Amino acid sequence: MKNLGYYNGLCDEIENISIPMSDRVCFFGDGIYDATYSRNYNIFSLDEHIDRFYNSAKLLEIELPYSKSEMKELLNDMVRKMDTGENFVYFQATRGSAPVRNHVFPRDTKANIWINIYHKEILDLKKHIQLITMEDTRFLHCNIKTLNLIPAVIASQRAKEAGCFETVFHRNGRVTECAHSNVHIIKDNTLITAPTDNLILPGIARKHIIESCKKMNIPVLEKPFNLEQLFDADEVLVSSAGALCLVADQIDGKAVGGKATKLVEKLQKMLLQDFIDQTQ
Amino acid sequence: MKNLGYYNGLCDEIENISIPMSDRVCFFGDGIYDATYSRNYNIFSLDEHIDRFYNSAKLLEIELPYSKSEMKELLNDMVRKMDTGENFVYFQATRGSAPVRNHVFPRDTKANIWINIYHKEILDLKKHIQLITMEDTRFLHCNIKTLNLIPAVIASQRAKEAGCFETVFHRNGRVTECAHSNVHIIKDNTLITAPTDNLILPGIARKHIIESCKKMNIPVLEKPFNLEQLFDADEVLVSSAGALCLVADQIDGKAVGGKATKLVEKLQKMLLQDFIDQTQ
Repeated sequence: MKNLGYYNGLCDEIENISIPMSDRVCFFGDGIYDATYSRNYNIFSLDEHIDRFYNSAKLLEIELPYSKSEMKELLNDMVRKMDTGENFVYFQATRGSAPVRNHVFPRDTKANIWINIYHKEILDLKKHIQLITMEDTRFLHCNIKTLNLIPAVIASQRAKEAGCFETVFHRNGRVTECAHSNVHIIKDNTLITAPTDNLILPGIARKHIIESCKKMNIPVLEKPFNLEQLFDADEVLVSSAGALCLVADQIDGKAVGGKATKLVEKLQKMLLQDFIDQTQ
Repeated sequence: MKNLGYYNGLCDEIENISIPMSDRVCFFGDGIYDATYSRNYNIFSLDEHIDRFYNSAKLLEIELPYSKSEMKELLNDMVRKMDTGENFVYFQATRGSAPVRNHVFPRDTKANIWINIYHKEILDLKKHIQLITMEDTRFLHCNIKTLNLIPAVIASQRAKEAGCFETVFHRNGRVTECAHSNVHIIKDNTLITAPTDNLILPGIARKHIIESCKKMNIPVLEKPFNLEQLFDADEVLVSSAGALCLVADQIDGKAVGGKATKLVEKLQKMLLQDFIDQTQ
């Protein structure tokens, strides 16, 4: 298939899939998701993404209809239907369906399971990116990967209008994360990245960066940093499932980073090698 | 019809309506809504709800495909299809459709228009309600009536589990609003209600309460109040489209209000009369 949509057992090209108006996504955005990439039909870090998906569901009390291994099998089966092995693999669960709109949880209904797969490769790590900054006005549940994404939509649109890759959110001066990525800095050969509290998503690419730094004997500080430190950093790094570790060279039109090039290249090489090794 | 679902020109019973997976509601909850009631097939305060709907759309840069008068005509047409004149009239707009999930706004697409109508009457104002309180962890755009409603879903579920009608949110001690209602207090013959900043929805029932108080020569203070004032109030009032002005007699299990009964009865009578007059 050239692309794949899946909804509760029904599988077809995305443009042919419809969902019932009674799905709670329609009125409340009431669901959670996760996403990763496949290469050679192998899904990268599937266990970690599945763990986070189940954790998001648990935090919102959404009861999933499958075990983790059943969900993994389903995703692997769906990827195998694709024309290409290099894909964006997206999955979500919504809090069931109810004929009448009502905020309270519907009774006797399990989550609806959705999948979207289409050809897409991870981004070229050599390309530098530009960022803008914006006040973080999101809710205080950013650790949960929910479908309540309007602030991320607006921030992404602002970045695009500015010709930039991403928007860095800051809350009362503290840098939290980007609209759909985590952000980190290198200063004096140390990686500084925000702690995984309720203000950021516990990124899996973020976790891989921390692990790689530790392997390279680069100290890691998981502690809040502010906008001043961001602009003053030796390097500014942005990470997500599709952007394992990108280097930013400009924020709000000002040049940033570029002072620990070799360290970053080594880090990127290790992260890319891990992606390749896991998806042979 | 016993109930009515509408999506971009397609109209059927709600359970028969499907929407495309490419609608941006599916992945981002990217839309806005409004809702009111009809009686005798007349939609209550339609102009005010339409104005707020267009304002929500404007604030999120969602381009609506209809003029206000076309939208009103559409809603009136749909209500006339119903078996009963007493209905919940719900309408929403989502930011178009795009075959591939992408945070940034889709190009060359106008909003998708949704309607849901079903038999439901406004609540009996004589019945007292009970409330619980909860920290307000929502985003800072509560003035916009968006479909990003997970915190309201969770708060409503908590209220239901406690056998209560609603949850009162408070942010750093300041009372904001309820999960799907506004909340006000009466103290020393004065109505105190939170100002319409980005922390609360500018409720239309709230506006009617203020207008009625002014007609009754009851002073109105639109200023923040805190939890202590809530518990110490002479009366605690909750308002929404379906609950014009309900009296709370208990919050978190503690007795509240009950000290300005006559004033409240007069206020409720005036609000109900306005509803009846407008929907003859």
